[in-house]
Amino acid sequence: MTILSSLGRSSRSAPLASKLFLLGTLSGGSLVAYSDSNAEANKKEEQRKKKKVVVLGTGWAGISFLKDLDISSYDVQVVSPQNYFAFTPLLPSVTCGTVEARSIVESVRNITKKKTGEIELWEADCVKIDPANNKVRCLPVFKDDPEASQEFSLEYDYLIVAVGAQVNTFGTPGVLENCHFLKEVEDAQKIRRGVIDCFEKALLPGLTEEQRRTKLHFVIVGGGPTGVEFAAELHDFIQEDVTKIYPSVKELVKITLIQSGDHILNSFDERISSFAEEKFLRDGIDVQTGMRVMSVSDKDITVKIKSSGQVVSLPHGLILWSTGVGTRPVISDLMEQVGQGGRRALATNEWLQVKGCENVYAVGDCASIAQRKIMEDIANIFKAADVDNSGTLTVEELQDVVDDILVRYPQVELYLKNKHMRNIKDLLADSEGNAKKEVDIEEFKSALAGVDSQMKSLPATAQVAAQQGSYLAQCFNRMEHCKEHPEGPKRFRSGGHHQFRPFQYKHFGQFAPLGGDQAAAELPGDWVSAGRSTQWLWYSVYASKQVSWRTRALVVSDWTRRYIFGRDSSRI
Amino acid sequence: MTILSSLGRSSRSAPLASKLFLLGTLSGGSLVAYSDSNAEANKKEEQRKKKKVVVLGTGWAGISFLKDLDISSYDVQVVSPQNYFAFTPLLPSVTCGTVEARSIVESVRNITKKKTGEIELWEADCVKIDPANNKVRCLPVFKDDPEASQEFSLEYDYLIVAVGAQVNTFGTPGVLENCHFLKEVEDAQKIRRGVIDCFEKALLPGLTEEQRRTKLHFVIVGGGPTGVEFAAELHDFIQEDVTKIYPSVKELVKITLIQSGDHILNSFDERISSFAEEKFLRDGIDVQTGMRVMSVSDKDITVKIKSSGQVVSLPHGLILWSTGVGTRPVISDLMEQVGQGGRRALATNEWLQVKGCENVYAVGDCASIAQRKIMEDIANIFKAADVDNSGTLTVEELQDVVDDILVRYPQVELYLKNKHMRNIKDLLADSEGNAKKEVDIEEFKSALAGVDSQMKSLPATAQVAAQQGSYLAQCFNRMEHCKEHPEGPKRFRSGGHHQFRPFQYKHFGQFAPLGGDQAAAELPGDWVSAGRSTQWLWYSVYASKQVSWRTRALVVSDWTRRYIFGRDSSRI
Repeated sequence: MTILSSLGRSSRSAPLASKLFLLGTLSGGSLVAYSDSNAEANKKEEQRKKKKVVVLGTGWAGISFLKDLDISSYDVQVVSPQNYFAFTPLLPSVTCGTVEARSIVESVRNITKKKTGEIELWEADCVKIDPANNKVRCLPVFKDDPEASQEFSLEYDYLIVAVGAQVNTFGTPGVLENCHFLKEVEDAQKIRRGVIDCFEKALLPGLTEEQRRTKLHFVIVGGGPTGVEFAAELHDFIQEDVTKIYPSVKELVKITLIQSGDHILNSFDERISSFAEEKFLRDGIDVQTGMRVMSVSDKDITVKIKSSGQVVSLPHGLILWSTGVGTRPVISDLMEQVGQGGRRALATNEWLQVKGCENVYAVGDCASIAQRKIMEDIANIFKAADVDNSGTLTVEELQDVVDDILVRYPQVELYLKNKHMRNIKDLLADSEGNAKKEVDIEEFKSALAGVDSQMKSLPATAQVAAQQGSYLAQCFNRMEHCKEHPEGPKRFRSGGHHQFRPFQYKHFGQFAPLGGDQAAAELPGDWVSAGRSTQWLWYSVYASKQVSWRTRALVVSDWTRRYIFGRDSSRI
Repeated sequence: MTILSSLGRSSRSAPLASKLFLLGTLSGGSLVAYSDSNAEANKKEEQRKKKKVVVLGTGWAGISFLKDLDISSYDVQVVSPQNYFAFTPLLPSVTCGTVEARSIVESVRNITKKKTGEIELWEADCVKIDPANNKVRCLPVFKDDPEASQEFSLEYDYLIVAVGAQVNTFGTPGVLENCHFLKEVEDAQKIRRGVIDCFEKALLPGLTEEQRRTKLHFVIVGGGPTGVEFAAELHDFIQEDVTKIYPSVKELVKITLIQSGDHILNSFDERISSFAEEKFLRDGIDVQTGMRVMSVSDKDITVKIKSSGQVVSLPHGLILWSTGVGTRPVISDLMEQVGQGGRRALATNEWLQVKGCENVYAVGDCASIAQRKIMEDIANIFKAADVDNSGTLTVEELQDVVDDILVRYPQVELYLKNKHMRNIKDLLADSEGNAKKEVDIEEFKSALAGVDSQMKSLPATAQVAAQQGSYLAQCFNRMEHCKEHPEGPKRFRSGGHHQFRPFQYKHFGQFAPLGGDQAAAELPGDWVSAGRSTQWLWYSVYASKQVSWRTRALVVSDWTRRYIFGRDSSRI
């Protein structure tokens, strides 16, 4: 039985209302108590008028949205299995202790603290999205506490789906059980302990040299930026720190990078790809391209050499699996409901609305923009542009809609750029290159026929997710204003204008740190740079992109600490 | 099948010997290869001559020993389940993120790096000490790796047992399953996550206010320095950081400290005890003294109020159990073997040798010095001092052995101090206070009769363990020299001198941080100090006591970070 009173708890547990009542009574009236309950009623009334926005996920997309959202006109609820945001591009640095886990995370409540109100956050997984009833079902993450693991439902007016993606094993047997991944902070911490464990195991008495070699064979599957950066970090860690404290086994270490394609970093410029391969060759990192992983066990990884068809088993000490992204179950389920079954990610329109449910938005790795083909709308565009209904378009008529076309169909601009044309009128030139004065519908169609080939989906990167979250917040902030003053392009099908300009991704380049204080970078405008100065550029960009002054200070001090004292190899 | 050669591994895996052979052949002779193998043989020969020292544990005692040991004449092997040393007095700071876990640990290999040789360290638990055969059996900590979890044996010439103690539940049901402890770094990390979880749980929708209060009820069992410091840290964390990000539940938090005795911090001076109780009262920490815990479940902790016999159940969110120390199974087993069954800790003599096995030493929390009573040796002392065999002791004869007595029986000095006597001759005064010139054996016995009441065992603290480890290293470093030139006191029983002076503990005082940047301290010479300046003294002492410059820099930067940015509440 609970006898709390005997422990003097009552005075602290007295509810606020009774304290206020006491205050009211003592001050000779009930004015205070009254005004308080009145204010509360007002607040509730106000709350009721606000549209309910539910945000699922606090990764790059979710956090960018929450940071930029003006919550004075929304009632915002966030559901996320983590109460923090992690600066994921630094995860590979966490695996070897170049940067500490704590330095790259920031409390969501800190980031989203607002002057104009409070955002509610619940540490839970969204297990079901029900767009028909505008509801989501959520399960708290505290599985071992019966009271705190009750499923709950939230209603929404707008839903922002930003749950990200999960690991993709491509159905390879044994991967989930025997590989490490690098998507969450916990993953990076596990890898760090795993790497140290490999060294400690290799030192144990009674092992053969072959067994020691196996323990110290680190295999990385996937030659994308994550895999390459982990290989580089691991190599640095071993060269700079581990050899000092495990001198007796340093000769036995081997790092193998397995890539199914012909080159590593194949989403980068070819020059960067070769630079990385040459650097890894010099470093003794064994890059094996053209290999498919068949299966993984606790001892071996079995690969097929594509060129010869030969199947080879490699004994391993630790495997990092970093190949592509897969779909979370809650997203697969939603896709089934809205008739998108079988896709990898939720299809949205250019305004990030999920196709089939207008008030559900999807951003980041769980979504993919299904761009509208210009050829689908070509007749409507022609009709809308042909204001005099002459059956032909003059250059002047085209000029009037050219901006709308460029905004609505961004593939046009890419196409022009690729064809080295200055503007859309150049498309209408005849075979000799002379600009035509007028075109009919057939000529217009054939001029734009090649444009849609330029459509490509955006990569699953932090940069894309952050820009999408931020874009969406801007739309929400101007929702009321833009209802009356739409700022988007002309609606060629139905007339009028779109409420907002569609989302457009700006690529600011990408980095690939290659170890030994060297990095490669692809910068806007086809610039490629590699070497030590690029590593310093990387330091400054990554420091500036931190989400708070706290993490910025910590990350910079971690880098400094590593220069002075090296990385720590304690297994905690 | 494993086909390594197809992956180009062979060139890196060529053993050193064959490379040397190649070098020898190329340089036109086999001189290089020969001299190398010769050197190796010499080294092995040298190694064989060295005495084998096995050290179990890398806590305060083990690390102090290893740091100070000159390994040029010993072959040292270390067995420890952790490859790091943790600065345990800062563990309570880790529980709330005032200091990061990584900042208080240092790699054992880094600490023990020596110019004169290499110390071997194995990450394993010692599961059996076999003093009859001078062997220990060890089990590596990597339970899920069949190759790396094979038991192995080590032989020793000298064994240093420094495995520490474990949690003591006093047989209370439910404690192991439902309580947190604070002995290891992992414990502190778990508590940190546990505290954040309590706040996240309390915010979940669908809980009653009573349930929210329960989630935020933090119970600490044990009013010793650890429990008190955790209560203070938790209170600060909640007041300074948590209230900012969980404002809606801050009124529901409650901290209860349960102590079985009448006062908290009862190993400290009374003034400190009262200062702490008053500070906690002001802070709203509920200190409940005179209570015995009967049982713990996942929901409740049941206590008996000693004065009234009333039994009360308290619902809790998180419990820290920090009461006393218990015996590790490997130590209990050893005690059985050497006829010390039923004790809490291994009994050693004043030279830290385990009673019953001369070449086994025990230091730190797993050991306790069984001090020799002067009354047991009184006849021998009398006989040894009575050089002229007159049957009486003159003051001059006593003067000759007084130093030996004071060193061999430190209780004498404590007794003299308590009785406000200046030296041992004062003991021999008659009832009027006049010094006698001569005493017989009966008078001598009655003069020293009260002395043994001053013997007390040393507390289980870092300070004691560190001094013991360091003392033992000094003995080992001078082992050969002191065999021929013993520097210890006279052997009153068997004649001659002891090889070394016995271990003597110097108490440098103790701190109790109480939160809100206030601390209490007991300093040598009966000084007591409390308040803000004591907290600054605490900062400087704890910074200076760090085991490496790396941890020193990190701990100080953590303190600074906390002042600027507060503590992080991300659940990682």
